[in-house]
Amino acid sequence: MITDSNGVVRRRIEWTLLAKTEGGLTQAAARHTPAATVRRMTYELHYWPTIQGRGEFVRLALEAAGASYVDVARGAEDAGQGFPAMLRYLRDGKVAHPPFAPPFLKDGDVLVGQTAAILHYLAPRLKLVARSEQARVWTQQIQLTIADMVTEAHDTHHPVGAGLYYEDQKAEALRCAKEFCSVRIPKFLRWFESILVRNPGGSRYLVGGKLSYADLSLFQLVEGLRYAFPNAAERALAQAPKVVDLHGRVAALPRVAAYLRSVRRIPFNEQGIFRRYPELDVP
Amino acid sequence: MITDSNGVVRRRIEWTLLAKTEGGLTQAAARHTPAATVRRMTYELHYWPTIQGRGEFVRLALEAAGASYVDVARGAEDAGQGFPAMLRYLRDGKVAHPPFAPPFLKDGDVLVGQTAAILHYLAPRLKLVARSEQARVWTQQIQLTIADMVTEAHDTHHPVGAGLYYEDQKAEALRCAKEFCSVRIPKFLRWFESILVRNPGGSRYLVGGKLSYADLSLFQLVEGLRYAFPNAAERALAQAPKVVDLHGRVAALPRVAAYLRSVRRIPFNEQGIFRRYPELDVP
Repeated sequence: MITDSNGVVRRRIEWTLLAKTEGGLTQAAARHTPAATVRRMTYELHYWPTIQGRGEFVRLALEAAGASYVDVARGAEDAGQGFPAMLRYLRDGKVAHPPFAPPFLKDGDVLVGQTAAILHYLAPRLKLVARSEQARVWTQQIQLTIADMVTEAHDTHHPVGAGLYYEDQKAEALRCAKEFCSVRIPKFLRWFESILVRNPGGSRYLVGGKLSYADLSLFQLVEGLRYAFPNAAERALAQAPKVVDLHGRVAALPRVAAYLRSVRRIPFNEQGIFRRYPELDVP
Repeated sequence: MITDSNGVVRRRIEWTLLAKTEGGLTQAAARHTPAATVRRMTYELHYWPTIQGRGEFVRLALEAAGASYVDVARGAEDAGQGFPAMLRYLRDGKVAHPPFAPPFLKDGDVLVGQTAAILHYLAPRLKLVARSEQARVWTQQIQLTIADMVTEAHDTHHPVGAGLYYEDQKAEALRCAKEFCSVRIPKFLRWFESILVRNPGGSRYLVGGKLSYADLSLFQLVEGLRYAFPNAAERALAQAPKVVDLHGRVAALPRVAAYLRSVRRIPFNEQGIFRRYPELDVP
């Protein structure tokens, strides 16, 4: 854990320094330049700075689209960013539409919370969803089903409640994870596989014949399952070849690949949603 | 429990008979007349026939708007409805957009699953959401936060997994419910109260100055909490007077009041999401 945590912290400082070095910015880093230069076009993402968590679904959409954004809580406090900048929106009694929890997105005057709502809002702007209402609602439905599975994955290590440490609910977690690995992972993956097989637009994408944010989210879900439950995930994925293909295809998208290699991608760790506790996986 | 269950069954038969008696239909019952007469304008709601569950959020929206709909799984099998009609969509390998689970809505050729997506789709058609994109996304965000709380309420009696009986996870449930009652109920209700207080359109509704589906859903959430956790709910609601007011205002809407008195409203029971297990409430 300490290694991971240190890794995260080191990387964060590195990224912050990089983002500040305005002279020598790479194109990838420039997309994250805050303030002055691209203010009006820059999205502000607010999320916990040391985990992928639910914020990662939004990061992936912004990265895959090459959008200009600031990952506010990971920025420097002396630049008006950092953790306090995020807390302000959660605590300021004057915010008319306060989010219940991170992640939330600020786009000019618009503040949007709830991962699925953020993606539904962003997707037409980032060209990550088809135009028809039917395609939009189907994409949203897939995202909400992914979100359900993400919640269940989280609850394997926190079945009693998020207010207690894992160590204080380990007995419950062992039972919960057993059910998740043996019943829920296969059931959800069967559904994702079946909708890929049935997609009238072909099995390369979840919706129609083009990349949507649902594809990015399914990629992230598979990443998380493979990290947290390597044995259970591989067993279930063996029955879901189209899901595996999609995961590989998304990982190879140039912008996504560049992001995954960058310091902006926070490594998985045991503070996030997907945690590697070997005792929770199947043998 | 047996009384409740019997009650549900009795009421279901009664409603089915009523809906079939085409000659003497009341206006309220006519709205649910299937097939021939109003086919093109009739929504099909598919949900478990003996519980309120997540389907109730959709039922409330349809009822409050006076929409024509069929609660398919509660209909008669010899009229092509009933439980098998619902299962068909879940099991038919030819459905291109199969829902992962009930509830789902059929509107002509469109099939929509996931409660929040169904409501987002239905709301503009039922005039249960304001027109601006910002209002729509805020309403959706509130709905998703209500959905999160509904999931947590469900998990109090099924913290290990939905595949096991409550009796087989009671020890875990006791710990989970304690956390839910003492921490989560107050936290969620504080947020709902605060967004009512801050609503620039006034505190009578959650979004702007008009009824939206989020108001109906918050009504249902309060109903559920009061049923399942009467002590914890009353304690937390004492700090949330605007939520209590809203609940009362929704209950008094003529169409909602008529629905709540009708046989179409399934009573709470111990098969649904909100279950009254006194041991899970605070003393």
